[in-house]
Amino acid sequence: MQTLVFTNDVAGELVRRIDEAQAYGTYALADSNTARLVWNRLVECRPELGAVKLIVIPAGDMNKNIDSLTHIWSELQGMGANRHSLMLNVGGGMVTDIGGFAASTFKRGMRFMNVPTTLLGAVDAAVGGKTGINFGGLKNEVGVFNEAEAVVISTCVFSSLPQMELYSGYAEMVKHGLLEGNEALSRLLEYDPVSADYDRLLSLLEESVGVKRRVVSEDPFEKGLRKSLNLGHTVGHAFESLAMEKGCPVPHGYAVAWGIVVELVLSHMQKGFPSDCLRRISDYVRLHYGTPAVGCNDYPRLLELMHHDKKNLDARINFTLLEAPGVVALDCTADENEIMTAMDIFRDLMSI
Amino acid sequence: MQTLVFTNDVAGELVRRIDEAQAYGTYALADSNTARLVWNRLVECRPELGAVKLIVIPAGDMNKNIDSLTHIWSELQGMGANRHSLMLNVGGGMVTDIGGFAASTFKRGMRFMNVPTTLLGAVDAAVGGKTGINFGGLKNEVGVFNEAEAVVISTCVFSSLPQMELYSGYAEMVKHGLLEGNEALSRLLEYDPVSADYDRLLSLLEESVGVKRRVVSEDPFEKGLRKSLNLGHTVGHAFESLAMEKGCPVPHGYAVAWGIVVELVLSHMQKGFPSDCLRRISDYVRLHYGTPAVGCNDYPRLLELMHHDKKNLDARINFTLLEAPGVVALDCTADENEIMTAMDIFRDLMSI
Repeated sequence: MQTLVFTNDVAGELVRRIDEAQAYGTYALADSNTARLVWNRLVECRPELGAVKLIVIPAGDMNKNIDSLTHIWSELQGMGANRHSLMLNVGGGMVTDIGGFAASTFKRGMRFMNVPTTLLGAVDAAVGGKTGINFGGLKNEVGVFNEAEAVVISTCVFSSLPQMELYSGYAEMVKHGLLEGNEALSRLLEYDPVSADYDRLLSLLEESVGVKRRVVSEDPFEKGLRKSLNLGHTVGHAFESLAMEKGCPVPHGYAVAWGIVVELVLSHMQKGFPSDCLRRISDYVRLHYGTPAVGCNDYPRLLELMHHDKKNLDARINFTLLEAPGVVALDCTADENEIMTAMDIFRDLMSI
Repeated sequence: MQTLVFTNDVAGELVRRIDEAQAYGTYALADSNTARLVWNRLVECRPELGAVKLIVIPAGDMNKNIDSLTHIWSELQGMGANRHSLMLNVGGGMVTDIGGFAASTFKRGMRFMNVPTTLLGAVDAAVGGKTGINFGGLKNEVGVFNEAEAVVISTCVFSSLPQMELYSGYAEMVKHGLLEGNEALSRLLEYDPVSADYDRLLSLLEESVGVKRRVVSEDPFEKGLRKSLNLGHTVGHAFESLAMEKGCPVPHGYAVAWGIVVELVLSHMQKGFPSDCLRRISDYVRLHYGTPAVGCNDYPRLLELMHHDKKNLDARINFTLLEAPGVVALDCTADENEIMTAMDIFRDLMSI
């Protein structure tokens, strides 16, 4: 069973874990940013970490590719790592995804732990066992399901993050709150991520990661319940792709926040999701995430993008909907008219 | 649980399995030899198989590399495969190793079945879940443990194999007989693989693969019992590497057959393995596998090669030994003097 540690002493925790692991050599993977902004500071804090051999890859999702992967394998090989060695992936989702994949395949699997350095990474990528790289122009096209033996989560490491990054990660936490129930949701909506209350954020994060972990442990390979984590993502991915096509990319979490509102409108229409809660969420999203640049003219392209979602097995568009906070309805579908109606209501709610 | 099918109607079996699998597209992987010698004949036999999309990679272990792997991923992507698609790996260990790895990682894992076309592949590579590629000059440096959902084993497909290939695979079967016990061993030593009695060979193969499967199911990740499958391989790999260095490579199974005899001598010295059985094995090996070109002058290099075996965690040389057929002693070690003595006795037994 994977160990999750929530701490504001990352350096000390890593020193203890490396000591206990009794691994045959320890390696850290970072990108060019997290090497400087996070790893070097951890080493300053606890000089024992200087004994860990550092592997650096270029930052950015476009470098989550086969070249970086073979670089990591070569470095591990050159430094004599074996299947009893330990790798620490220190970075955002890009680093934990590619590092988890490299470790899962080197010598048919060495040990690895994740140290997420972004809120989105902590709540989403670092936990749940999805590893991989982009390939042939498609995201996460190649990879394996394999969980880190431990994930060390801290909110202090977020202090260098831009505000937008914090909100982006927080959207996934709001999603987890919706899956969990009214109380968890209320605690989340009462907090504003830019308040920089890192102790409070750490405790909210612990609850939120717990939701994801329970879902994943019941359905690691996404055959059923895990699809609930797609709430907001069918529409969210379409918003994200449309913004990219228009040359004005938006952070993943912003697109997900808007997607959540649209899918809650659909939930209201199809499953009777309560309108007061829908209103509360849409107000929170409008206040903190603003509104997407979407008009009626964009509907045909948005529908096309939803049809291309890789979770669709056939011509229907699939959604995860909610009857109420905490009451999930998997494998729902909606026709194009319903989706356009939901988009209209969404634009009203968001005053677009 | 993995399905093992032993049949002499491979084409019919594949048609049935593809039909039952209800996969989202079926793909076959073959190398340039097995595409021609095996896959095309299967399609001639059952034209329905023509609907399966064929991916071909260059033959030979030197092509079990990252270039062939990315070629397979690209082909799958280009032809629209997804995680609900099925891949059939049709070939020797090279094809089932790389094909299993490609399928295990494409979209984080699609379905795959193995159709081994060599005796060594059938008894060794196709079953047990080890997949991977060579990397940075080292064999099987990168890969995952993941079992094919079915393995379809036939001896008819061996009819185009050279005699040496049959003996090479048979050495692994003799190893399984030694792990299983006296009766299984006797049945194997009474048969000569070149007799071309394919029905008899199929039934011996079924028993032999069953031994491997039981061992692997008890210890899939090689933490304990699975090490018993290394019998003969510590010394065998050293013979194989030495022959390669001298420019006279020998087939893997030949080196293993000689390695088995040396390790049974060690088993006799350390664990009282019965001398009459040792003599029976060494006679069988000398008769069918001949003798390696090894003199006292080669001992230092052979010892060095044994020290480099990747299963060694420290300076000691590890062996799997036997107290008797069917009675395994894992994690044994021997010092250099003992090994040299065993080599002397081996050379006497083999009349070198």
